[in-house]
Amino acid sequence: MDVRKKLSERFAGVEGGLFSNVTKADVGDGFSAMGKDKVTLMGWADPFYPDPSIPEHIKQVMIEEIQNGFPSHYIMPSGSLALRERVAKKLKQKNHLDVDPKRNILITPGSDSGLFYAMAVLLDQGDEVLVPDPSYPNNFLDPKLLGATAVSVPLAHDDGYSLDIEAFQAALTSRTKAVVLTHPNNPTTTVFRKENLEVLAEFVIKNDLMLVVDQAFEDSVFDDIEFITPASLPGMWERTITVFSISKGMGLSGFRVGYIAACDQIMDAMYGAAVNVLGASNTLAQLGAIAAFDAPDFIDPYIQSFDYRRKKAFEIFGSVPGVKIEMPESGFYCWVDVSGLGDSTDVMNYLVQEAKVAVNDGKNYGKQGNGHLRIIHGCLGSDEEAVLTMRRMADALVKYPKRNGE
Amino acid sequence: MDVRKKLSERFAGVEGGLFSNVTKADVGDGFSAMGKDKVTLMGWADPFYPDPSIPEHIKQVMIEEIQNGFPSHYIMPSGSLALRERVAKKLKQKNHLDVDPKRNILITPGSDSGLFYAMAVLLDQGDEVLVPDPSYPNNFLDPKLLGATAVSVPLAHDDGYSLDIEAFQAALTSRTKAVVLTHPNNPTTTVFRKENLEVLAEFVIKNDLMLVVDQAFEDSVFDDIEFITPASLPGMWERTITVFSISKGMGLSGFRVGYIAACDQIMDAMYGAAVNVLGASNTLAQLGAIAAFDAPDFIDPYIQSFDYRRKKAFEIFGSVPGVKIEMPESGFYCWVDVSGLGDSTDVMNYLVQEAKVAVNDGKNYGKQGNGHLRIIHGCLGSDEEAVLTMRRMADALVKYPKRNGE
Ligand SMILES: Cc1ncc(COP(=O)(O)O)c(C=O)c1O
Ligand SMILES: Cc1ncc(COP(=O)(O)O)c(C=O)c1O
Repeated sequence: MDVRKKLSERFAGVEGGLFSNVTKADVGDGFSAMGKDKVTLMGWADPFYPDPSIPEHIKQVMIEEIQNGFPSHYIMPSGSLALRERVAKKLKQKNHLDVDPKRNILITPGSDSGLFYAMAVLLDQGDEVLVPDPSYPNNFLDPKLLGATAVSVPLAHDDGYSLDIEAFQAALTSRTKAVVLTHPNNPTTTVFRKENLEVLAEFVIKNDLMLVVDQAFEDSVFDDIEFITPASLPGMWERTITVFSISKGMGLSGFRVGYIAACDQIMDAMYGAAVNVLGASNTLAQLGAIAAFDAPDFIDPYIQSFDYRRKKAFEIFGSVPGVKIEMPESGFYCWVDVSGLGDSTDVMNYLVQEAKVAVNDGKNYGKQGNGHLRIIHGCLGSDEEAVLTMRRMADALVKYPKRNGE
Repeated sequence: MDVRKKLSERFAGVEGGLFSNVTKADVGDGFSAMGKDKVTLMGWADPFYPDPSIPEHIKQVMIEEIQNGFPSHYIMPSGSLALRERVAKKLKQKNHLDVDPKRNILITPGSDSGLFYAMAVLLDQGDEVLVPDPSYPNNFLDPKLLGATAVSVPLAHDDGYSLDIEAFQAALTSRTKAVVLTHPNNPTTTVFRKENLEVLAEFVIKNDLMLVVDQAFEDSVFDDIEFITPASLPGMWERTITVFSISKGMGLSGFRVGYIAACDQIMDAMYGAAVNVLGASNTLAQLGAIAAFDAPDFIDPYIQSFDYRRKKAFEIFGSVPGVKIEMPESGFYCWVDVSGLGDSTDVMNYLVQEAKVAVNDGKNYGKQGNGHLRIIHGCLGSDEEAVLTMRRMADALVKYPKRNGE
């Protein structure tokens, strides 16, 4: 019996690394396995990994809660109301969304499953989703896992990777149901500008579409670029499901706490099947997250560190002949164009060998990611280590043997 | 704009309690809201809720880990290898499954999402799934959320709620893809017997189907009934995805740790999309779960307490005229036939009013659940409180005003 044939068609082609070598950082053990022989892993968007980094006030709350003994119990699948109240306050202040914590917020066990769930409530078999390319890999695979189709809409480096509405228009069909946006965009670090988002909103409304926005990196936006939450634009609240996370901005990836904001009508369905698709979120982590929202200043030095590192990354990789980099606009990683050197997979493998650093192949982020690497400087513990490791990579890249076109 | 129309057809009819009154215990706030005015909630399968109940050795490990500061970081979506090794040992000892922790085990953020994921990798649009009725509500809704159809296969009280293969045969069509089993069965407490499971296995193999088994309650099986893991039966390993949880047996619901065992071919796909559908599982909870598996004796007194309570439940509800109950075979709840009194929703509401206790309406568990209540004696902190509360219910039921047929 060939049990592969029994799998859903939606999972055809999904590989977990048991029968082939998968180096996507979050699948199987392929990426971790590269971390042998003193190879530094710079491919997980996990701040300061693996250094200790839980703020003291959060530690204290969690230790007390464990001692109290309550965290063995469930919190409802819709999430802790106390946490939802904190989130509502934050949504108002930062995102200009004035929502009812009892009706418009769902706590999710991380934002990956939140993003999947946001698409699940919208998509039917055969629907199409417009996905900017490059963007977060889940944007491409999630629709397929739901029986829908991700239609790639290219973002161009020369347009600063902004949303090209003509390209969206060209990709539109009668089956188009939604647009999925990673904002700020991972891997390009692009913070989509207000005018650009307004044109997108117009496109969405005119064509009666829905919008899913993943704002996992909203906390680290640099150079005073104005950050706009698309759901706050006129006419967009009811058309938008926004997915958030405490993994990146708060550096609490292992807590697995995310949240979703959406209108009553959508949330009614999401509350109704939350126990099915998500289950409840971890109790102790929700209690810890409350403490994090109550005193969120601990993230300021994180952002300062990421700011310092992105400038260093720009300087270091920008100095390598044949390598191109723009100043990152957000996040704690950079997007490096190595197409002048060669195929990005080759360059990635070369860096493992020669510089003892493992980074992400741009091909994971869509067709347009070809020829690029994503390098996560924020995952290392200290600024110094991050800078030294980037220098090591740059030194190796300077010596890259077979340059394209040479 | 009516945004309801924008939702996937798969979510049509899913209600979260924002526009209607939903009293399903794990949806929205309807059930919790009943817990006012000193109403005792006996409808969450959460052991000893809300009393402190984390064993000391688990507390200590978790507090140390928090102090170390690592739990802010991700563990891979496939799960902690150290935990998977503990799980492999347990699967061998208890379930007679000899598996490779690197290839056959996936840690999930609770078993609800694990159950959903198990169905997701199998089902395509239009597929049919045979679901014993009554059984766990997710068995009915999950297939619909995936665009498939749950086909109800009645279990009869007079057959001890065993699997009626003729009924399965009658429900079989060319679109049948899988059977979903809750074993032991929630809500009936039925532990399916070896001979019965062998006939089911034969049916599955003969008709080239797959089997999903949810063993969330495998730890509390009474009266020395032999517990068989269907995946361990001849020819069934490759055809079965088995879903487990530490929520029930170990009383660690709030940790949100479950696990799945399946063959390489299935697991390759599951590892490949774990980051999409599930995300990673909570880091600290996985570290706590390792401690739980290392010294699992703490569950023995839990099981003894559940055993005592089920006998009391049998005695107490069995003494009410017009009410029928069988001795529960497993778990920490009982399945009570109140059809002799009236409609189960009416009886449930009556108990909230008259006995100040909220329980689960049998209608949530399939058509056959009509006329029944599920009463969770295991959720209360002490045996004494559980017994007193059940007596309070029985006293009220004796006075139930409009008995059927009177
Ligand atoms: C853009 C984006 N969204 C979502 C996630 C998932 O984050 P989490 O599930 O930890 O909230 C990531 C993680 O790398 C990400 O980069
Ligand atoms: C039969 C059954 N399966 C699965 C679950 C979900 O458990 P968890 O997600 O906590 O592992 C429950 C919870 O009530 C259950 O009763």
